[in-house]
Amino acid sequence: MTAADTITRLRGLVEASLAGTLSSESSRIPSPLREAMEYSLMAGGKRVRPVLLLSAGLAVGGGEDDLLPFACAVEYIHTYSLIHDDLPAMDDDDFRRGKPTSHKVFGEGTAILAGDALLTDAFRVMAQSHLAQSNPGRAVRAIAELAQAAGGGGMVGGQQMDLSATPGSSTAAEVDEIELRKTAALLASCARMGGILGGGSPAQVDALGEYGTRLGLLFQVTDDILDETGTFEEMGKGIAKDRARGKWTYPVAHGMPAAIERASELERSALAAVSTFGTEADPLRELVRMVRNRRK
Amino acid sequence: MTAADTITRLRGLVEASLAGTLSSESSRIPSPLREAMEYSLMAGGKRVRPVLLLSAGLAVGGGEDDLLPFACAVEYIHTYSLIHDDLPAMDDDDFRRGKPTSHKVFGEGTAILAGDALLTDAFRVMAQSHLAQSNPGRAVRAIAELAQAAGGGGMVGGQQMDLSATPGSSTAAEVDEIELRKTAALLASCARMGGILGGGSPAQVDALGEYGTRLGLLFQVTDDILDETGTFEEMGKGIAKDRARGKWTYPVAHGMPAAIERASELERSALAAVSTFGTEADPLRELVRMVRNRRK
Repeated sequence: MTAADTITRLRGLVEASLAGTLSSESSRIPSPLREAMEYSLMAGGKRVRPVLLLSAGLAVGGGEDDLLPFACAVEYIHTYSLIHDDLPAMDDDDFRRGKPTSHKVFGEGTAILAGDALLTDAFRVMAQSHLAQSNPGRAVRAIAELAQAAGGGGMVGGQQMDLSATPGSSTAAEVDEIELRKTAALLASCARMGGILGGGSPAQVDALGEYGTRLGLLFQVTDDILDETGTFEEMGKGIAKDRARGKWTYPVAHGMPAAIERASELERSALAAVSTFGTEADPLRELVRMVRNRRK
Repeated sequence: MTAADTITRLRGLVEASLAGTLSSESSRIPSPLREAMEYSLMAGGKRVRPVLLLSAGLAVGGGEDDLLPFACAVEYIHTYSLIHDDLPAMDDDDFRRGKPTSHKVFGEGTAILAGDALLTDAFRVMAQSHLAQSNPGRAVRAIAELAQAAGGGGMVGGQQMDLSATPGSSTAAEVDEIELRKTAALLASCARMGGILGGGSPAQVDALGEYGTRLGLLFQVTDDILDETGTFEEMGKGIAKDRARGKWTYPVAHGMPAAIERASELERSALAAVSTFGTEADPLRELVRMVRNRRK
């Protein structure tokens, strides 16, 4: 099985497991909250974060069944952040991946609650997992990693910086800090969580965290490059549009040639971070290629 | 020291500890998110939930230092729920305890993020606590309790039912279910968490949970009775106002005499649930009296 096949297999496991975690609690969740949670959680996407957590865990010898609830939890967190980011008081987006956003379908109140429920239930899924009983020390360390990366000092803080930013007055360093917090912090924590849950050494967990940060920054810079273009060829149009909208991204802050050079540098440094791992880290290497070469 | 003095002392510990948990992370939290979190978290209030958790933990022989981070976490959760409940898409309240609500001061976007950050950081505070290292099994069980009570199947679900409810068509049973989920579920989990963290037996934890549910329902029914009146004497005015506003509470659903009888019954059953405990549960008994006799 190639590394790409492994990624596909892991993605399938995540889809099935997400559906399972939701349905096990669904009888307790009132309508239309349940439907709103399911609408966003099961809307597809590449499941980069849970697949990353699983790949990192497998790289240090972890078991898939132990890892899966935590993989679902990071997707719950990612999904909640999208629902809240799309709200009128935030980015005010009507569509995401071609589908109407949560608040357009269910109304603003239910969209806020669906985000709140997914965020809270992410911690429920982890704390009620099998591993939380068999190895609570590892479980609680993974929970701490995720909460730190997602909270006020991490992802939510990045969202606040984005909300407060005025393109004309932000420095390039501030833009980098926002990207680090909004995307890279969560991806780094996914990689570290996999390492912790799989029983990796402290050095391995740190290497995975470094890998995850690089992958996260690569993800964000390629996202910015591809945003509204679909391919590198059309990127000139994208940057012009982003500038016009006042959207502040790495290519806008530093210029497109610097953004492309940065993507190449991040690809190299992500791979270097896991160079001491053997073939068991091949899915992690494949993830770098996939993020680098993806199309919108 | 009387039980009332103990409650006052515990409340002081909570205030100091809340300020400490916030300031330890504050250098990482950008403005104005930090200020918004602090504005709502340090706005006073009676700290019923954290004091309940501490009192339950002390009743089974737990140590205050072990319990305090978890006590802070439940206040973080309570505070986030108030910020989001006050939003224009929810209850649309301009004032809380005489102060402008978060979104009136900081804007809707930052208010949503402040709630998100407090909710996430509640789990950070618990998972990074000293007890999470020394006894991760207890810590992870307490985290599971709180997440279950606060999530889509608990408090957020109750909020959705409240949002969806149309006074004319809700049954009395539905109103009871909303009150159980919105308030009693979280208070019951505070009591159970204290029991778990303090090392109580399964029977003790269940007794504390039963006590907490009763206290939570008592809290809600007295709140409904006192809402907008301030004293029992003026309750006639309150219920008339609630009916006019279409607000659906226990007194509106069942009538005021039934509500008062229910408060007395809940007071008795809360005390009965902890009747097997000795004097170490006196703060829990004092809490019942305080909730029953409080003024708005």
